Parts: sequence; structure tokens; C-alpha cells
Amino acid sequence: MTANVSFLDQLFNQGILYDSGVDGIYGRSADFEDVISRFEDLALSLGKDEISEAMVFPPGMPMTDFETSGYMKNFPQLAGTVHAFCGSDHDHMGLIQCMAAGEDWTENQKKTDLALTPAACYPLYPILAKRGPLPESGAYVALQSYCFRHEPSKEPTRMQMFRQREYVRVGTEEQTTAFRETWKQRGQEMMDLLELPHHVEVANDPFFGRAGRMLGSSQREQELKFELVIPVNEGASPTACMSFNYHMDNFGKAWNIQQADGSPAHTACVGFGLERLALALFRHHGFDVKAWPAGVRKSLWG
Amino acid sequence: MTANVSFLDQLFNQGILYDSGVDGIYGRSADFEDVISRFEDLALSLGKDEISEAMVFPPGMPMTDFETSGYMKNFPQLAGTVHAFCGSDHDHMGLIQCMAAGEDWTENQKKTDLALTPAACYPLYPILAKRGPLPESGAYVALQSYCFRHEPSKEPTRMQMFRQREYVRVGTEEQTTAFRETWKQRGQEMMDLLELPHHVEVANDPFFGRAGRMLGSSQREQELKFELVIPVNEGASPTACMSFNYHMDNFGKAWNIQQADGSPAHTACVGFGLERLALALFRHHGFDVKAWPAGVRKSLWG
Repeated sequence: MTANVSFLDQLFNQGILYDSGVDGIYGRSADFEDVISRFEDLALSLGKDEISEAMVFPPGMPMTDFETSGYMKNFPQLAGTVHAFCGSDHDHMGLIQCMAAGEDWTENQKKTDLALTPAACYPLYPILAKRGPLPESGAYVALQSYCFRHEPSKEPTRMQMFRQREYVRVGTEEQTTAFRETWKQRGQEMMDLLELPHHVEVANDPFFGRAGRMLGSSQREQELKFELVIPVNEGASPTACMSFNYHMDNFGKAWNIQQADGSPAHTACVGFGLERLALALFRHHGFDVKAWPAGVRKSLWG
Repeated sequence: MTANVSFLDQLFNQGILYDSGVDGIYGRSADFEDVISRFEDLALSLGKDEISEAMVFPPGMPMTDFETSGYMKNFPQLAGTVHAFCGSDHDHMGLIQCMAAGEDWTENQKKTDLALTPAACYPLYPILAKRGPLPESGAYVALQSYCFRHEPSKEPTRMQMFRQREYVRVGTEEQTTAFRETWKQRGQEMMDLLELPHHVEVANDPFFGRAGRMLGSSQREQELKFELVIPVNEGASPTACMSFNYHMDNFGKAWNIQQADGSPAHTACVGFGLERLALALFRHHGFDVKAWPAGVRKSLWG
């Protein structure tokens, strides 16, 4: 590593990521994508005997469900909504004139019924709710989604559009808290297999504004969120590459997901930041995947 | 197939797609995703000796490049722009009050520097342009992206968020037109392997408004666009599942992509509508992938 070239520039120079000109929006190389696929296979293999279902979501979700999630209350600064042109031929001529004059042409973009998905598990909850009360065994879902967070950054680990793979457990308090403990352990074992330095620490979500600081403190006190962190960016705190979250019955109440006995379901999820984990691997094992340590290659490519 | 249950409802009932409540936004099952991955592997294997590079893009692209593309001039009705909250604590309180009162809280969502990607090859062109004149051999890129089109529909083949896999050829007129002919042939051979009924026809893009009708006619006359269509939706025209496009030097001029001799590059692309192709396979071979014809299974799973 050359100290005066940033990790992001090294990723561009080595052809691992492609610069779009907007921070946090990058093309991915074939090698980068292959690492992500292999990591996903590894993560999926660990839960295959437990899951009840697997789903992959598109990068957007219904606005109504996004509203129900409470995301705009807690993290308005990170959210993205999708807007579209709904005008006539005449309106369109105005738009083209604005654009030609270098003026803001987006003023007449109207909200659609879609928001960009902020967290991979959000689209799941309304699907479960619609089915009625859960079976006694609850639900144990493997899922994946592109997510959006509006936080442009030069740290390659802080992308605006990135993929999360998750396991989500929905059921009783016991089912969900036990699930979280299992995955806290498995997550660390996975990182040992991949020979990445790591530790798990209590954490909080980036709640917005003054009131948000109190919410963050409360979340830490109740130990609702843990993160597995890995040093990736030079001169910066280690990066959260997995998170282990227990939401109590907040989402059960918000979306009306019922346990078998009709009470609000508890939920927990383990999230894998796929781009962040790939970046951690490139950081610690080098840009040439063929030269990665034999044990790491075996864990990923078999 | 039960005639009075729509194909979309069958896909929901069979657990192939998950209903989000918004038309064109669906969760995908593990089987659905596996079919897409296998199809991508098949498509990638056919071009592997020719490509110069492979890239995967996130679902959004820089607004400036989106503007350069001319998409808002030709297809404003289909585009999506990303908007975000950029306010203070005080603004946030107003937003929460609006939301609680069931009023439109999105009025203060401001445009960001991102648009949703409308076609998988758009993010590629500015990357190529920045590198300066192409080598004599041009560029031959395999890529994939989520794309967005604002056209809610009950036809499962018309999703709002879907993935395109593409090959893009950039270089001389001869290189790009020969590429398109090669893939027109290969596309039909692939559909024969997958035992899907198909034919190729001249086509046009859905240009907006009155002026758009003339653009569409002109595109057809010049045979700039061909589509491979497959019957998928009952009682509807067959669905375009691949397209074979020659853009002349329009994109070369728009983004300033230069040939080795400094003249504007010609571009051509072949696009595979991944969700549409998966849906065509489920439509013609049934909902149980294990029961698909042996030849189809061999082509996809080897």
C-alpha cells in the first residue's frame, strides 16, 4: 500500500471499482462481484437448515410501507424517495427548455409511490403481516436487497447504493434473541475463516438531530444493536461489516405482524454489508484474488 | 394453467414472486434468482472470448450523465430521480407533523445528484469517455444493472425495477454493426437451447408525446432496434426479452467517446431482460424448475 494514495484511488487504479464521478456510486469489477457472490454462498450455507424462505428484493419499496417503518422519523437525512415526470407534451417542452438553459428541471418531478429501500429487511415485514398470525415456529428468512443511504463519502466503505444480505428471525422474544446470539457467534467464526481482524461491539444507529442522540444512547444501553467491525479505511475507525439487531416488538407493532397467539411479533436481523466485506477482503488480502491466502480461497471458492 | 387466474397471481400463489402491493415491484424467490443467475452464466459464456471488461452497476447513476443521455428528452415519463431531505431539526419536526396528519411530506424532498439508471449501458459511456480515444480494437464490455422505468403494470413482464444484462460494443461502424448481427444470431440460438418460442422483429423505443411518434417511425425505418419477442402474457402481444440496438454515433457524440482516430465512436448493445427471460421460462416450462425439460436444465445447470 502506498501511504499517499487513498484506498479508494487504489481500488480505481486496480480496476476493482469504477469511478462514476459521484462519491459512493461505483461500478463493480467482475472480481469484486465474484467475491460478493462467494461470500453470499458462504453466508447462505450457514443458515440453510434453519430458514423457512429466501427472497431477493428490488432496490425500491412501497412508499406506504416506508412510511410505516418510521424511517423518516429517525433517519430522514439518509432516505431517498423516487420522483417522476407526470406532465403533458406542453409541460415536457418546458422541462426541455429548463434543461437546455441549465436551470433546475426537476421542480415538476412528482413523488411516486416508491422509496428507495433503506434496509434490506423492511420489504419483508409487510409481506409477513399480510399472511396473518405466524406459526409457532415463527419465520426465518434469508434475503438480499440493494439499499440506499444518502451520505456521499470518500470512504469506499460508505457507498450510497450497496447490497445487504440478511437473515431475519420473526417470532417470540426467545426465538429472536437466541437467533441473534447464534449469529453473533457465527459472524465471528466467518471472519476467522476469512482471516480478517475483527471484534464485536455495542452500537447505535445514526439517529437524526438532537432528539436522535438520546435514541442512540437508549439503544446502546438496551444493547439492541451490535456491530462486527473490521479496520478498512486508514486513519479511520474500523468499519461495521455486520450488524446484529434486536428490534423487540417495534416492527411487529408497526406492521401488525402477529405471533401465533396474536401478540405482536418480535424481530431480529443479522445484516452483512456485502460491499464492505468485499472491501475488507481486498484491503487485507490484496487486489489479486488469486493470491489470497489458501484458507481464505478455500472458504470462498471451495 | 387456469384460464381465470392471471399469470401474475399464479406467480404469487406459487411463491415465485412476492407481492409488495405496488404493481411492478416484487420480491423474488430463491428459484427465480437461481434461474436468473444461470441465465447470466449462459449469456456470459457466449461472449467470454471477446469481452475486454466486465462491470456491474448500482441502480443509480450521476444526474449529470443522466442529463447528457438525453433520456428526459425522449422518455421523460419513464425516468426516476432520487430526492432527499436536506433540512434542519426544525424542518424535520414539520415533516413529522405532515406525515402524522396524512399530508404530503415529500414537498421538501430536494433533488440529489442521482437518477435511477434507465438502461444498463448508460453508466458505461462516461467511464469510457474519460479514458480518452479508444484503442483500434474498440471496447467490448459485459455489464449488468438494475434499471428503473416508471410504468406500473399488472403484466409481470413490465416491472418498474428490473435487471438488464448487456453486452456493449464501442468502436467503428463496422465493429458495432457486425457485433449486433452476431448477437441477433446468438440470441436466437440461446432461445432454441432454452426451448422458448421466439422471433426477432424490428422495433422502436417508447418515445414520449406527439414528436415521439415520428422518432419511433424513423427508428424503425433505419432498423436501429430489433427485439426478440416471446409470448408470455395471455391475450397480449409477445414480450420483448432481448433487444439489439445500434445507436450510430449518437452516444459517442453525446458523451464524447472517441475512436482511435478521434472521430465519435459508434455504439451498439444487446440487452437481456433478465426478469422477462425468467418469466418466459416459468411460463413455458412450469413453476417447478426441477421438472423443466432435460435440454433446458442442461443448458442452464450444466
